[in-house]
Amino acid sequence: MTMKITTLLLLVFTAGAFVTRGQTNQPVDDWKPAPSNQPGQQYPQVNSEGRVRARIRAPQALDVQLDISGKKFPMTKDADGMWTGDSTPQDQGNHYYGLVIDGAQVSDPNGSFIFGSGAWRSDIDIPAIDQDFYALKNVPHGQLRELFYFGKTSNTNRHCFVYTPPDYDKDPNKRFPVLYLQHGYNENETGWGHQGCAGFILDNLIAEGKARPFIVVMENGGIALGGNRPPGGGRGPGAQSRGSGRGGFDFSAFEHALIEDVIPYIDANFRTIADQPHRALAGLSMGGMQTHTISLAHIDTFSHIGMFSGGSIATNEIADMAAFKQKVKLVFVSYGSRENGATGKTNVLALKEAGINSVYYESPNTAHEWQTWRRSLHEFAPLLFKE
Amino acid sequence: MTMKITTLLLLVFTAGAFVTRGQTNQPVDDWKPAPSNQPGQQYPQVNSEGRVRARIRAPQALDVQLDISGKKFPMTKDADGMWTGDSTPQDQGNHYYGLVIDGAQVSDPNGSFIFGSGAWRSDIDIPAIDQDFYALKNVPHGQLRELFYFGKTSNTNRHCFVYTPPDYDKDPNKRFPVLYLQHGYNENETGWGHQGCAGFILDNLIAEGKARPFIVVMENGGIALGGNRPPGGGRGPGAQSRGSGRGGFDFSAFEHALIEDVIPYIDANFRTIADQPHRALAGLSMGGMQTHTISLAHIDTFSHIGMFSGGSIATNEIADMAAFKQKVKLVFVSYGSRENGATGKTNVLALKEAGINSVYYESPNTAHEWQTWRRSLHEFAPLLFKE
Repeated sequence: MTMKITTLLLLVFTAGAFVTRGQTNQPVDDWKPAPSNQPGQQYPQVNSEGRVRARIRAPQALDVQLDISGKKFPMTKDADGMWTGDSTPQDQGNHYYGLVIDGAQVSDPNGSFIFGSGAWRSDIDIPAIDQDFYALKNVPHGQLRELFYFGKTSNTNRHCFVYTPPDYDKDPNKRFPVLYLQHGYNENETGWGHQGCAGFILDNLIAEGKARPFIVVMENGGIALGGNRPPGGGRGPGAQSRGSGRGGFDFSAFEHALIEDVIPYIDANFRTIADQPHRALAGLSMGGMQTHTISLAHIDTFSHIGMFSGGSIATNEIADMAAFKQKVKLVFVSYGSRENGATGKTNVLALKEAGINSVYYESPNTAHEWQTWRRSLHEFAPLLFKE
Repeated sequence: MTMKITTLLLLVFTAGAFVTRGQTNQPVDDWKPAPSNQPGQQYPQVNSEGRVRARIRAPQALDVQLDISGKKFPMTKDADGMWTGDSTPQDQGNHYYGLVIDGAQVSDPNGSFIFGSGAWRSDIDIPAIDQDFYALKNVPHGQLRELFYFGKTSNTNRHCFVYTPPDYDKDPNKRFPVLYLQHGYNENETGWGHQGCAGFILDNLIAEGKARPFIVVMENGGIALGGNRPPGGGRGPGAQSRGSGRGGFDFSAFEHALIEDVIPYIDANFRTIADQPHRALAGLSMGGMQTHTISLAHIDTFSHIGMFSGGSIATNEIADMAAFKQKVKLVFVSYGSRENGATGKTNVLALKEAGINSVYYESPNTAHEWQTWRRSLHEFAPLLFKE
């Protein structure tokens, strides 16, 4: 019911925006600083159409452009050397962006910095009609823990983030299910905890009693920690692993690391319920493809499977349907409405007909971007570990 | 003994560098990618003199400069539109830097991003003779936990990082002392965990048996969470608090928050030894000044006091010397050798003469920068919570 109202509101909102766009090219003059800005920064701004207005001082520059996910928008200079430029209306939610200053591609000093598209770069949040579900609220919060540990299989220092739910430290005897949640190509283990808002999404769902408290492990889908990183690398943004799938989609190294290094380490160091019924695997884009490959090969390890904008499972890929039906409790597939989710939808229907609990979710008016994946996690989490 | 050898080696190294600098302006051609670079990036590079070589593609730019902590170095363009420029030799350790492209001050897309100087910007690590003490090693690691919680005194959502030592989750009955560790002006709660390498420093000291395992709390020295941050802010780099002392050095708001919100929250949610003998307060620069003010007013709360490049305690500031002597177990003061630590040194001597356990440390060949503070933490931590 909630979903239907949200969908309706989104349609109404979008229809309104289209009328505005059709009538005039003049932006609506209700600009506000983006919620993702660095503290105190007035730019970039967004307006109610979802346009982005960037501004930077570059007195000697000849040409400055705003670049949102590869699409360029011109900026113009005033007498003080300040460049300003607007984008066309953007989808609600998170977008990677940057500035091009006389041919140099750089981050916007005023935006927030995330790891995406293979680099640390700017991101901007366009306020969304459903932003409440990933907002920071005065509810009990889980912890996002940054871990370093040695992985024997990968023969390297691994780096991951683990979300522990709000009650985790209250009762030293209580154990929790675990979701292994993967990022996309050219992203890394920081993505879900930062621009993905995984912690706030789960904090809010748990506070509303809509999801069972569970642990989330966010690992790097590549295999090795950055070659020329530490000494002195420190924890945090700079310490991400390299790889992220660069060099082709062979997932076998990550499969070995996940099954032989990551899961045993998590089970040994956190109070997990260390069995198949209480272990889920999901991911976005390339992480969805990894989930597809790895979960099909390990149905004794994972009971709940989620693929967000990253494929689906066809019935003819399932070697032993009876075993799959018995062991797999959920196959969740999602896409943004601006992506092509037709095959995913068809495959979910076929799984349902085969008697498997399968769910298809389409995020309204979003593309292959984080708003699709925030919503996917928000839809997926309440379906996990039902008893 | 270790300290003395390190000091000697640093002197030898620096003497060598001076000879090289004196002989020629040509950089030594042994450039290597900086350890702080983004994964796979070949630039910026550093050479054995500690020079920084930056490179960026900006084909239409008229003027590009390398800016290290405010000092500018020219860069020159080749036929392909690639700009390259070298700095003079820099001190070992971490420096904030950026690029100036036709007057626009931006981060280097190849460097790592940290919060410093009031913004997210680039930082670079010049390999240091003693870098081993903050290196990522195959030793048991603690966790760096990111926390959100509501502070009643500050009437806002607070954001901090908590380091828990490697053994923290092993024994649910074991309790630990706590160090509250503050950042500097225009920095925030991410600094110590990231460019400060606090986690690796403590992991390594604990693994060598040189420091007692304790919890470290890294809070924001300002008071309010960024006004136009979440919804959608997410955890991590973008979610830092604002303030950091901007608008003057009145520490009373932070004093109230620390004593009335932060410490009670930490004591209620972590297995602390919640008494004065097991609670320390330290900070760098402005965080040292906060430590000075707050610890003098709360000797019933803190037993160990550390000021790194941020002041010291004169005997005439101590209202009740007998009480101070009885309750305060350590006053630690440090400066980089390129700072003026004369007053700090004098004050430490006076405290010693008054019978108070006081230590002065000078970091060889460093200025008001993170290498001074990494070393200060490394010297300070082994002196804490002796029994």
